[in-house]
Amino acid sequence: MIDSIRSALLTDLYQLTMLQGYVQHGMEGTAVFEFFVRRLPPQRRFLVAAGVEQVLTFLEGLRFTPEELEWLDGTGRFQPQFLDYLSRLRFTGDVDALPEGTVFFADEPVLRVTAPLPQAQLVESRLINLLHLQILVASKAARCVLAGPDKLLVDFGLRRAHGAEAALLAARAGYLAGLAGTATVAAGLLFDIPLYGTMAHSFVEAHEDELLAFEHFAYANPGSVVLLLDTYDTEAAARKAARLAPRLRSRGIALKGVRIDSGDLAEHARRVRRILDEAGLGELSIFASGGIDEHLIAEHRRQGVPIDGYGVGTLLDTSADAPYLDCAYKLMEYGGRPRRKRSEGKATWPGRKQVWRRRDEAGLLLGDAVALEEEGGEGEALLRPAMRGGHRVEAPEPLEALRRRAARELEALPPPLRELAPGEGGYPVTISPGLQALARELDERTA
Amino acid sequence: MIDSIRSALLTDLYQLTMLQGYVQHGMEGTAVFEFFVRRLPPQRRFLVAAGVEQVLTFLEGLRFTPEELEWLDGTGRFQPQFLDYLSRLRFTGDVDALPEGTVFFADEPVLRVTAPLPQAQLVESRLINLLHLQILVASKAARCVLAGPDKLLVDFGLRRAHGAEAALLAARAGYLAGLAGTATVAAGLLFDIPLYGTMAHSFVEAHEDELLAFEHFAYANPGSVVLLLDTYDTEAAARKAARLAPRLRSRGIALKGVRIDSGDLAEHARRVRRILDEAGLGELSIFASGGIDEHLIAEHRRQGVPIDGYGVGTLLDTSADAPYLDCAYKLMEYGGRPRRKRSEGKATWPGRKQVWRRRDEAGLLLGDAVALEEEGGEGEALLRPAMRGGHRVEAPEPLEALRRRAARELEALPPPLRELAPGEGGYPVTISPGLQALARELDERTA
Repeated sequence: MIDSIRSALLTDLYQLTMLQGYVQHGMEGTAVFEFFVRRLPPQRRFLVAAGVEQVLTFLEGLRFTPEELEWLDGTGRFQPQFLDYLSRLRFTGDVDALPEGTVFFADEPVLRVTAPLPQAQLVESRLINLLHLQILVASKAARCVLAGPDKLLVDFGLRRAHGAEAALLAARAGYLAGLAGTATVAAGLLFDIPLYGTMAHSFVEAHEDELLAFEHFAYANPGSVVLLLDTYDTEAAARKAARLAPRLRSRGIALKGVRIDSGDLAEHARRVRRILDEAGLGELSIFASGGIDEHLIAEHRRQGVPIDGYGVGTLLDTSADAPYLDCAYKLMEYGGRPRRKRSEGKATWPGRKQVWRRRDEAGLLLGDAVALEEEGGEGEALLRPAMRGGHRVEAPEPLEALRRRAARELEALPPPLRELAPGEGGYPVTISPGLQALARELDERTA
Repeated sequence: MIDSIRSALLTDLYQLTMLQGYVQHGMEGTAVFEFFVRRLPPQRRFLVAAGVEQVLTFLEGLRFTPEELEWLDGTGRFQPQFLDYLSRLRFTGDVDALPEGTVFFADEPVLRVTAPLPQAQLVESRLINLLHLQILVASKAARCVLAGPDKLLVDFGLRRAHGAEAALLAARAGYLAGLAGTATVAAGLLFDIPLYGTMAHSFVEAHEDELLAFEHFAYANPGSVVLLLDTYDTEAAARKAARLAPRLRSRGIALKGVRIDSGDLAEHARRVRRILDEAGLGELSIFASGGIDEHLIAEHRRQGVPIDGYGVGTLLDTSADAPYLDCAYKLMEYGGRPRRKRSEGKATWPGRKQVWRRRDEAGLLLGDAVALEEEGGEGEALLRPAMRGGHRVEAPEPLEALRRRAARELEALPPPLRELAPGEGGYPVTISPGLQALARELDERTA
């Protein structure tokens, strides 16, 4: 059995056949690859860097196991000298990256790998796989946070995330971007993310009586009683919750809230709020779930709907309105010479780059410049050393620190970038004169 | 470190708090849950069952490790007796399911769990997570196969799949539905799926000269030479490939094909075909990638574009036009009594059900009926025993057998279901009189 999270075989076949070519022809010089997003989806005005930590862990542990090498041998595609090379392969290169939680835009390198060509090439597939997913989810979660900064937002997406790793990394990316926590228990253990949960319809249905179900749940979980109201009739269930509250209180159990999961959430929330308030339960919060995204949260906020928190599931974890990014990991330099792909609609900016960001006095983002590393620039240099010679430059930042950075970044967004409607935020990202000149020069050379 | 694929903590927090309630109140009677899709996305006229094998593996291995139990204890949410219960918990129930590769429709149970209530409840999150993803991808892949039944279709989706598990299971689901194979090496090892690959732009760019890159690749991989043409100028590269072919042939190396990855694929393919044919290389195949989906494949086919195969990546692995399904796993019966949720827009059909399928003499699908198990029905009963008492009824079917079933199923689709345009295929799925009567009866009882 291979380790399906860490395996070096989490790569495309062509990486291995290309490596065989590089190794056979002694092409082990230093290569520079950069990961970037070509174009933002129309549904996103900015993106949030995430997933760097998982990339570093993958690179640190990169090796082919004897079982994997034997299996590769059995495919008949690889020569013994090459398999021997693979058995010794480790990642010995450098990584520079945007710190997780940093806001970024199209054409800006998010992560750069500087390593012997075969190493830098091999890791392309998994590296994109890890960054792409977490950027997707962190960016979507950030929009939910912008839509409801005062709401308790919880990731409910495990069931419809695309597989287990997607669910776990979505919980991480969502928390990093500012959600309050997740319902996914394993993510609590893996990443120390706060866990939230209520109860399901099946719990109510398994009892002959809804009120009895509420009582049973409360007695079993006295510290966190959130009752689900919409199994049969939402308002009737709210009245049962109101009747139950004093009885529970007399046993030292405090109801924390209720959840609504179907129908017109706004209308039900208003009615339930009234029922609870009239019963003197103003402190009980109303939590909603089912088809939640940033647009619904924003609409509820505009209407003053009395919903205190949301379970954001499917539409967040699958980034349903933009389920993929046009991103790439491209060769920018090899053997000391810059490289440029000119494929139609997919041309790349060559060379080792840095992103420079300018801010106003209040810290608000003013504009970015992408420049060749040696050009320098104005403002803050965003790409920072993350790995040197295959070793991390520093211990992993705690997730809480990444979360604080993301919160600061969201606060620094100029108003047009905070809009949720599709469209560009008009944020200026300029390409430096040196970079433009180099691209022209390379085009002339290879024309 | 937890096992992020098999962990029993791949569940939502509320499953554990509900279990604490069930166990505290002795609710360990037999529960029946069914997984089904409420509504098909408008972009899908049918779905393909997939992922059952991974569900069975998960259920067989279900247990809490000492480390997980200790961590749960540390959350302060669970009582010692309950943690003790969890330490002994195994899946001892029954599973009935559609054989993987079976075509199905809304409201039809895909998988049924019959087990003590806590067991059946606990596994909900991961079970949906596993079935949802593979059904999504198998159904999308089936549409690609319908669009290009004579084309070599290969999964290229690892990099933009949502995490590693999504990529691996997408490779499996795609192959099951009829793709020729995948580029994901680890999926080759895990599932014995044929591997395909070509070369990347970076390989060409790392060389000073495109022709030299082609030669290097061919010498290193003489058995599978597919050259990538669009790094700089597609037609110029095609002429280089044509010049190289005889030289390689003299060294015993046969070019197999070329790949185009950008620009107007149809137009480039026509020009490249002409260049290759004029050079006497009619046997070389043209492979295309980049933004491929069933609609583009169908459009090319209508236009007679000379493309022989496609790498289908992002749009397949993320099921981009329908990145999630409105699916659920719902309690249908507990303690011998049928159950029904009545939430607005989310009401369920109660009781243990079977799906009956009628076909015409040629085998074409005529219509389905969803009925209570005891009602019986006409035609073929689709749900079959998969697990009894926690043990598989039979050894896993080979993936090749599932693939043959899917191929037969696609052949049996009536013409309206084969259409790729959004819309329903008009396929009749009736709800049996007994099921309708039971639903009415339950509504009256709980009204």
